[in-house]
Amino acid sequence: MKAHVIVTLKTSVLDPQGQTIQNALRKIGVTSVEAVRQGKYFLLTLAPGLTLDAARAEVERISRDVLTNSIIEEFTYTIEE
Amino acid sequence: MKAHVIVTLKTSVLDPQGQTIQNALRKIGVTSVEAVRQGKYFLLTLAPGLTLDAARAEVERISRDVLTNSIIEEFTYTIEE
Repeated sequence: MKAHVIVTLKTSVLDPQGQTIQNALRKIGVTSVEAVRQGKYFLLTLAPGLTLDAARAEVERISRDVLTNSIIEEFTYTIEE
Repeated sequence: MKAHVIVTLKTSVLDPQGQTIQNALRKIGVTSVEAVRQGKYFLLTLAPGLTLDAARAEVERISRDVLTNSIIEEFTYTIEE
């Protein structure tokens, strides 16, 4: 089982890195992108034998306690069996 | 329309950052995670009026030419209408 975790800055937090990418895109003539936000992606390979419920609980705990700085970031995840 | 782009190291490329996270997880007693790979996530807000085909072409071009170092990285994307 694999878990895909995406950690992004909360929408209220400025994202200078995303803004820089957007500016770079504009400079090379890309007009179809109105905004860019950057985040982090984690692919977790889970040990075999976990139930889906146990996997969800574990991934939520790891995402909340280790991968995300809850002051400025939030996370979403999907689990692939 | 929004595009979600995920850029990851190719599986043949070592990922010391992911390895470090995995070691940290093991140290705090997490045994349910066998491997961690880290990547980057980009949320692109696309200009209104693009067709789905045009959006796909544009997102592929940006991902390939700007967001990904094709020597060591690869990308996947989804488009949300």
